[in-house]
Amino acid sequence: MMLSARVRQGQHVFENLITALDWLGIIVFSLTGALVASRNQMDVVGFILLGTITGIGGGTLRDLLLDIHPIFWIEQPIYVLVCAGVSILAFFTAHLVHPRYRLLLWLDAAGLALFAATGAERALGAGAHPIVAVIMGMITACFGGIIRDTLSQEKSIIFSYEIYVTAALVAAATFVGLNALGFGHEVAVSGAFLLGLALRGGAIQFGWSLSRYRAK
Amino acid sequence: MMLSARVRQGQHVFENLITALDWLGIIVFSLTGALVASRNQMDVVGFILLGTITGIGGGTLRDLLLDIHPIFWIEQPIYVLVCAGVSILAFFTAHLVHPRYRLLLWLDAAGLALFAATGAERALGAGAHPIVAVIMGMITACFGGIIRDTLSQEKSIIFSYEIYVTAALVAAATFVGLNALGFGHEVAVSGAFLLGLALRGGAIQFGWSLSRYRAK
Amino acid sequence: MMLSARVRQGQHVFENLITALDWLGIIVFSLTGALVASRNQMDVVGFILLGTITGIGGGTLRDLLLDIHPIFWIEQPIYVLVCAGVSILAFFTAHLVHPRYRLLLWLDAAGLALFAATGAERALGAGAHPIVAVIMGMITACFGGIIRDTLSQEKSIIFSYEIYVTAALVAAATFVGLNALGFGHEVAVSGAFLLGLALRGGAIQFGWSLSRYRAK
Repeated sequence: MMLSARVRQGQHVFENLITALDWLGIIVFSLTGALVASRNQMDVVGFILLGTITGIGGGTLRDLLLDIHPIFWIEQPIYVLVCAGVSILAFFTAHLVHPRYRLLLWLDAAGLALFAATGAERALGAGAHPIVAVIMGMITACFGGIIRDTLSQEKSIIFSYEIYVTAALVAAATFVGLNALGFGHEVAVSGAFLLGLALRGGAIQFGWSLSRYRAK
Repeated sequence: MMLSARVRQGQHVFENLITALDWLGIIVFSLTGALVASRNQMDVVGFILLGTITGIGGGTLRDLLLDIHPIFWIEQPIYVLVCAGVSILAFFTAHLVHPRYRLLLWLDAAGLALFAATGAERALGAGAHPIVAVIMGMITACFGGIIRDTLSQEKSIIFSYEIYVTAALVAAATFVGLNALGFGHEVAVSGAFLLGLALRGGAIQFGWSLSRYRAK
Repeated sequence: MMLSARVRQGQHVFENLITALDWLGIIVFSLTGALVASRNQMDVVGFILLGTITGIGGGTLRDLLLDIHPIFWIEQPIYVLVCAGVSILAFFTAHLVHPRYRLLLWLDAAGLALFAATGAERALGAGAHPIVAVIMGMITACFGGIIRDTLSQEKSIIFSYEIYVTAALVAAATFVGLNALGFGHEVAVSGAFLLGLALRGGAIQFGWSLSRYRAK
């Protein structure tokens, strides 16, 4: 009895942690969009637009492709409000964020790793094939940033030297693998998150990268 | 009796006006796409492609996100035919349109303001939350142009100094607000249209803009 | 009896041919994405991403717009695996592909012509209006490449001097026309394929192009 109560309490704590990380991811992604807006000296509406698209873009594409309706932010508009709020805040405080760019990179890495896992989970929940679930995890984690870079005509993260999309793919595949091996939600999300974070963190800290194509 | 007949007649005139403005919006948006095609010296198929995507792009994204199927132009292909026709016409007459660019800007403003209102209305009709309806109004009005600029690698309107997306957001919010206050269709559409047009018109005429982010 | 057996055998051969061409199209489109990745000296994951998006992008947009779910590669993930496999192969052998660019152009033309026909057929099968079916054929054939060029910020094929989108439109319209005239699947696909291939082939071989807009 006591043990099962502790387990339940542990699950409760874990779920709160996931929810907190989920919001952290949304907030950090929005911030990266707002920073691009600041580099382009946009007005506050531009901040809101680019910040919000970056925050919810990946999950939107995932839900569209999987035919999950209503799309998560159409069902719960609070997501959009938070993205907009973060973007407005960034409009007035971006000069405080810029010198903390390195911290932002790490928070972005955490969002990337978590969204890859939870995106894959949402796809499996919708009945998708494991391979499709891995792709959906990557899309959830990366396509907000890809849309941000495309709209603002910056060099896309898909061209970055450092590991980025790769970390999302590995995290999503780890989640799907652990899930297929029968591990529970907590273990699968944690394992995927930590591995994805480690990979992307290594890229941030040590410049880890895959070897690139060179013309022969 | 006579009064109610007059009211009905008034509604009839109003609906005809809305329908006329709706077509005007589609036509003007297509024209702006065709003008980008002319600046890039495209062939007539390029005109059709860019003109049509600009004309129907915003409404297409709105219907996709809200899961409204068939998408409006798949249900009524006449929309595509008109966009294509306008684009073909522009291929032969763009030299007549260029010197009337200022008129085009004003017509574009009218399309922007109307589509923001009718896009929001369509979202409310599909059961969307008021916040989502405001977003959908903005998407309907702005994303044809955003897709046009992204495909043709022009600086996107989201980076424009002048008020543009803001006017669409205000028009959509006005419609949703008037609707929530119990005002009828005519009042809500008219109020939203006039306020949106005034804002965007001020930007065209007097260079109205919001203050922009400046590095501190 | 013998004749009908021969007809059935002929149909069987034809279907195998279509299936082979369908895979050829997917493979060639992926290759063109991987070649853009090689020009940008991306890593192998970048090859996979850009190759796969190019291979399946057009069909994905078609299925989304027509509300056909599951989207073809979500139903049969083998499509994604093949695109990824081709992209990985290209990462190691792109230096062998580059000098055969002209061959690739011709294979791309074959994919373009076939996808325009089969995309239009899929749209008709979903109950779409003939005009919409022509558009969907063009989207299936061209939008993988358009998304590839937009993501990699290359000059889009919609701006190309040579006939490209036009060939897809003609092939799709030919299929829809032959179908409406009561011709069977084999005749309609073959006619559309050959006409599209001839048009695009003329562009490759002789530089065929439509006259372009010139400022007056």
